[in-house]
Amino acid sequence: MASGWFYLSCLVLGSLGSMCILFTVYWMQYWRGGFAWNGSIYMFNWHPVLMVAGMVVFYGGASLVYRLPQSWVGPKLPWKLLHAALHLMAFVLTVVGLVAVFTFHNHGRIANLYSLHSWLGITTVFLFACQWFLGFAVFLLPWASVWLRSLLKPIHVFFGAAILSLSIASVISGINEKLFFSLKNSTRPYSSLPSEAVFANSTGMLVVAFGLLVLYILLASTWKRPEPGILTDRQLLLQLRPGSRPFPVTYMPVTSRQPCESW
Amino acid sequence: MASGWFYLSCLVLGSLGSMCILFTVYWMQYWRGGFAWNGSIYMFNWHPVLMVAGMVVFYGGASLVYRLPQSWVGPKLPWKLLHAALHLMAFVLTVVGLVAVFTFHNHGRIANLYSLHSWLGITTVFLFACQWFLGFAVFLLPWASVWLRSLLKPIHVFFGAAILSLSIASVISGINEKLFFSLKNSTRPYSSLPSEAVFANSTGMLVVAFGLLVLYILLASTWKRPEPGILTDRQLLLQLRPGSRPFPVTYMPVTSRQPCESW
Repeated sequence: MASGWFYLSCLVLGSLGSMCILFTVYWMQYWRGGFAWNGSIYMFNWHPVLMVAGMVVFYGGASLVYRLPQSWVGPKLPWKLLHAALHLMAFVLTVVGLVAVFTFHNHGRIANLYSLHSWLGITTVFLFACQWFLGFAVFLLPWASVWLRSLLKPIHVFFGAAILSLSIASVISGINEKLFFSLKNSTRPYSSLPSEAVFANSTGMLVVAFGLLVLYILLASTWKRPEPGILTDRQLLLQLRPGSRPFPVTYMPVTSRQPCESW
Repeated sequence: MASGWFYLSCLVLGSLGSMCILFTVYWMQYWRGGFAWNGSIYMFNWHPVLMVAGMVVFYGGASLVYRLPQSWVGPKLPWKLLHAALHLMAFVLTVVGLVAVFTFHNHGRIANLYSLHSWLGITTVFLFACQWFLGFAVFLLPWASVWLRSLLKPIHVFFGAAILSLSIASVISGINEKLFFSLKNSTRPYSSLPSEAVFANSTGMLVVAFGLLVLYILLASTWKRPEPGILTDRQLLLQLRPGSRPFPVTYMPVTSRQPCESW
């Protein structure tokens, strides 16, 4: 039953994430003239698509690798590699998204990094880069001590969620800014809510819904990889499936929480 | 030592929170002409101040009531009342902040609720209202069953943090939008980063820093009220202070985590 809920959440998450990317592509293609890579406004149009794809959808998906029940049993290294590789893909998309906007600005002699959207966005990308390199050095390479790993793990998990929250704030302020730039026409201003505004606002709200669902699964769900050395009932079932590799851990039945009047 | 870190964090948090409010007041007073309550643009100026104060600073402070070591021993009811009362104050400030912007819009025949900032902002305030009323009904009034409380508690904690994240996204997009509205003058546009833009952008980044610190203390720190029935070493010290009220709980020494190679 719990497993059913998990896969239903994955389905909702995959649908929401795909919709976030497709809606942004459609907004840029249908209302903003499409895409190019020549320093024009059509090059800028890659920026929202790649930032939503990289900093929100791929980043969010990559964060949830350890919530897959398959990752709970057996060696952790392949899942660490997948976690790092997916985040690297997200980072590459993000960097290409930044190249698109900087090239467009430089080509049109527009100032870079003056708005609060850009200040927050570049800070978020910088934090993402630090998080990836620190994660790679401490958790993937074999040289860090157990003490250092246990010290940094909660900080790594916290900043993983914090960077996603800041990405959402950057995307919301970016969509808002773009609509004020684009919908200046006095006959169809942003304030008259033309169809483009409704569509782009809805895209922003979809990004928020996707981000909240990722954060819920990451922080509040019970689908966490249990502490090492302890095997839950559900993991035991996974272990006992035909073809599963045995993994030397201690079995502890999961006890329900003790009810208490003080809540 | 841990207690020292906690109170240092409180000091940093208090300073950051005060700076967020004071910087917003100074921005509105020095660059935007000050405050009034007459439907003019000076009435609008209350909006950013009250939203930063209500939805971020008071809300953030109110969320952290159960992180105070004093709340860990003795009956929980007075702390629940404080938690609810502080959040109610935050909510009242928020509602007055909304009245300021709606009155200004209606007075100047400006459309309401068209930008993505306003869509996200009003959704966040709606979620805050639901969270407060649900929290009041389930956790403060005595009628909810233990089963319902234990079911809703992680959802209440998650949405507490999620609403703060959405508030930050709303504030960032709001400051960004306000600066694009105000700094239109072709001799000193936003893109030339006049002193007002630097100041207001910095205020936005301060709000982000405050929000992240609150979320860190809320989600990732070890300063959580322990599960009922278990008394940690630190709580025992608090209990043994002269004048402390005894509270019937089980003492369990805190054991350090078992090191493990798989991190």
